Amino acid sequence: MDKVLEISLLYDFYGQMLTDKQRDIIELYYNNDLSLSEISEAVNTSRQGVYDLLKRSEKILYNYEEKLKLLKKFMDHKNKVLEAYKLLDDMGNSPEVNKVKEILGEIIETEM
Amino acid sequence: MDKVLEISLLYDFYGQMLTDKQRDIIELYYNNDLSLSEISEAVNTSRQGVYDLLKRSEKILYNYEEKLKLLKKFMDHKNKVLEAYKLLDDMGNSPEVNKVKEILGEIIETEM
Repeated sequence: MDKVLEISLLYDFYGQMLTDKQRDIIELYYNNDLSLSEISEAVNTSRQGVYDLLKRSEKILYNYEEKLKLLKKFMDHKNKVLEAYKLLDDMGNSPEVNKVKEILGEIIETEM
Repeated sequence: MDKVLEISLLYDFYGQMLTDKQRDIIELYYNNDLSLSEISEAVNTSRQGVYDLLKRSEKILYNYEEKLKLLKKFMDHKNKVLEAYKLLDDMGNSPEVNKVKEILGEIIETEM
């Protein structure tokens, strides 16, 4: 998994364990795609300070996953649901099949 | 949800965030069904000390869920998978249906 996607997913899972400032910086960098210099101006902190905060926040997120492994477990579940969904796709278009697909589709589309 | 089940599930999710001693006490009390006095003897700590450790550990688990809500999200997913599984049960016994049920069954049986 590429790092940007991985951090975004970890942030969805464990972001609530970060401080407001740590969250701000993760969002500006990973979700809003700002550079360190731009974030430095936006949050009135030195570029080095922003960099340190970013690395520290990433480390916290990785540490939670290393201990809890909940992202991995959820991804495993979601992949199985996707596999089931694809098999249903090959089973035609009856109302029964569609109902099951609808339920599984809700899971596939859920963000954490 | 009754409290014993709730704590057991929270423990499966967030137990890795507790210390070894906190984990021991949660396991002895909730999984092995020992009394406070029995745990007190087993871990060589006063009954009051065991009680305090237990309450503190429960509070940590509840706090993680209050912030992250991952147990709730996981239960929501699992309930949807169960709903899909039951609908498949009514769709007869073809190899295609059975294959999808097998995949969903793996999710239903996973513990965290």
